[in-house]
Amino acid sequence: MAMSVSPVRGTRDYLPREMRIRDAMQAIILRTYENNGFQRIQTPIMEDIERLDKSDGGENLNMIFRILKRGQKLDLQKENLTEKDLADMGLRFDLTLPLSRYFANNKAELRLPFKVIQIGEVFRAERPQKGRLREFYQCDIDIIGEETAAAEQELIHTTAKALQALGFDEFTVRLNDRRILFDMIETAGFPKEEVLSVCITFDKLDKIGAEGVRKELTEKGFDRAAIDAFMQIVGNESITLKEIAEYCGDGRAARELEALLESAKELAGGAYGIEYDKSLVRGMGYYTGTIFEIVSPKFKSSIAGGGRYDKMIGKWIGEDYPAVGFSIGFERICEILLNSESLSFDAGQKRMGLFYSDGDVMNDVIRKADEFRAEGYDVTTIRRGKKLGKQIAALENEGFDAVYVYGDEAVKELNR
Amino acid sequence: MAMSVSPVRGTRDYLPREMRIRDAMQAIILRTYENNGFQRIQTPIMEDIERLDKSDGGENLNMIFRILKRGQKLDLQKENLTEKDLADMGLRFDLTLPLSRYFANNKAELRLPFKVIQIGEVFRAERPQKGRLREFYQCDIDIIGEETAAAEQELIHTTAKALQALGFDEFTVRLNDRRILFDMIETAGFPKEEVLSVCITFDKLDKIGAEGVRKELTEKGFDRAAIDAFMQIVGNESITLKEIAEYCGDGRAARELEALLESAKELAGGAYGIEYDKSLVRGMGYYTGTIFEIVSPKFKSSIAGGGRYDKMIGKWIGEDYPAVGFSIGFERICEILLNSESLSFDAGQKRMGLFYSDGDVMNDVIRKADEFRAEGYDVTTIRRGKKLGKQIAALENEGFDAVYVYGDEAVKELNR
Repeated sequence: MAMSVSPVRGTRDYLPREMRIRDAMQAIILRTYENNGFQRIQTPIMEDIERLDKSDGGENLNMIFRILKRGQKLDLQKENLTEKDLADMGLRFDLTLPLSRYFANNKAELRLPFKVIQIGEVFRAERPQKGRLREFYQCDIDIIGEETAAAEQELIHTTAKALQALGFDEFTVRLNDRRILFDMIETAGFPKEEVLSVCITFDKLDKIGAEGVRKELTEKGFDRAAIDAFMQIVGNESITLKEIAEYCGDGRAARELEALLESAKELAGGAYGIEYDKSLVRGMGYYTGTIFEIVSPKFKSSIAGGGRYDKMIGKWIGEDYPAVGFSIGFERICEILLNSESLSFDAGQKRMGLFYSDGDVMNDVIRKADEFRAEGYDVTTIRRGKKLGKQIAALENEGFDAVYVYGDEAVKELNR
Repeated sequence: MAMSVSPVRGTRDYLPREMRIRDAMQAIILRTYENNGFQRIQTPIMEDIERLDKSDGGENLNMIFRILKRGQKLDLQKENLTEKDLADMGLRFDLTLPLSRYFANNKAELRLPFKVIQIGEVFRAERPQKGRLREFYQCDIDIIGEETAAAEQELIHTTAKALQALGFDEFTVRLNDRRILFDMIETAGFPKEEVLSVCITFDKLDKIGAEGVRKELTEKGFDRAAIDAFMQIVGNESITLKEIAEYCGDGRAARELEALLESAKELAGGAYGIEYDKSLVRGMGYYTGTIFEIVSPKFKSSIAGGGRYDKMIGKWIGEDYPAVGFSIGFERICEILLNSESLSFDAGQKRMGLFYSDGDVMNDVIRKADEFRAEGYDVTTIRRGKKLGKQIAALENEGFDAVYVYGDEAVKELNR
């Protein structure tokens, strides 16, 4: 009964060699986050389906994996059965929504500001033909309970450190503020209640270009005059944040962003770029203020992204808490680093293969291996086959540091 | 719009303090496994639903979380709709079935014996009233490609080391062999095809006692004579493995188990117990030979368990590969260790709280924190409130090692 043995579409099996690098990378990220005063927590992968459906997850709401109800709760006889009748839970599509629920649930036991690390898997029913993963890791830091830009500053500083610790040298943090974006859109003459709809179209600027944006806004039935006014600002490549501030809104958000840009630049000290990007939107519906992402010339899409979501916790408990988060796209940086020639991640411990023969007493072999283990080697015992040379070559190829044949005088160091 | 903020039933939120201990424990287990020559891999959490349903997962097959089909694949108009029509994937209920699929899929790139580590979450739709977790961690090691008891020996040795590294001092490894169990059942006179059914009932011995087992076997309609013969052996507390070997089968399995028991005892050197347990069954349908579990007087159920499953990989690819695995019940040992007074897990790095005031320049504060970070402290920056003493007491209570108030001359060590 031969069955397919591939992982389900959009998921992956990780081989030992790649896993070693992924583990080392996650350890570097975690260490950097902890060193900068963040604490790790964990939320369940399964979440209440209503909570997921009612969240402001933008496009991700269409990509929720739903878990079938079980036992008597599953009523297949019901008339006009819909998807909603069938599922009671879903898999988390990001780490931010679960964090806001977690904070609401546990805030009595948490010290403010709550500086929190989450490293875990998220699930999105992406269309498989896109070649995107449907099950992948995110590495997030968030600060809850800090309303000033000190939070943004710290998230940018810490995320940049993590990327540097991983060996990234060229990257730029792009910043914008949803409030500025909303003001621009309203000032141009779009109706207040359509601001998010305009944002969704504008977010496609990179993909479909200015003409594409103009076309889609026209198709959505917006006023020609509003579209013209809006496209004039966003099409003006030399317009500064100050000029935008003068043009629209009360200018407060722009002044705050200007201050953050200056202070983040000063802290970066030229080690990485900091810049204002008036066309940065970020997909999530829940952002209320600053939004940011990190781009690298080595990779076309962003490698980290985040923003402020001051209204999300209030949805749970009726009381708002300021909150900002920054998420590293772990799979993207893995892809970059695995393909980078300059990178050589060595995950620490020296490795040895210890060969034994059928006649050897197994307990003696194990005790010998334990001696080397106590000396600092990670030792794997291997039964000696007919072609010892081939077996040794395989270990060398895997990056092992030494071999020892049971009974021999000396350890043989491998040339790597 | 107040909504429930509790995690879904049977799942948990992990607070920073507990998470720190869990992370430290997983790191100890992983380090021990790696030091003993095992390599970490990872399989997807989502698996093909047919593969899960057709596996020999015993009771777990009734506890699979099913994922609803999406888009056009979900046909709610179909007549006589059943559960099978609705789901195309499920969440893994253990790490063994995915490992066998993984091995079948990747064997061309894997070196034999394949000694493998898996640390990850598994999902079971346990009835919530039982108080069991529905989403929890397992820490497994497996050896694929080694047919002799050298594999069992190494798994027991390594798992015992991991428990010792975690601070466990009193535990016993109990061993049995499914072949002996099957022989006993057949020799007693049960039909060959009912052997697993008898096993399932017999597995409940601890819960329902000998009388309960006898009653259930009678209800299943088995011969009085077979039940009597079987209960006589299993009820005989002084019967030895040798005597059982003489009584049933060809005695080969019993001789092999005897040899393993002796050699494992010799290797353990009295540091932990090794014993034969004729009533050990283990729930999974896929075990074909040795089965084992670890019990501790500190906890009523087993804290680790495993066995040999030589026929599982053959189901995928038509070619059998010998395979054995040992799984630590991570949540159980967490529960024991968190409640243990003798235990004090300290997860390494010293922690400092750095207080700043509203008037301080944030970048200077961050640079000062970076200095302490470079010195080896994990530093969290905190805005100074009205009651600094209370803020410091909170850190002390969390186990922080030091505080520093920005502008002060010296670091204040905390008395812990």
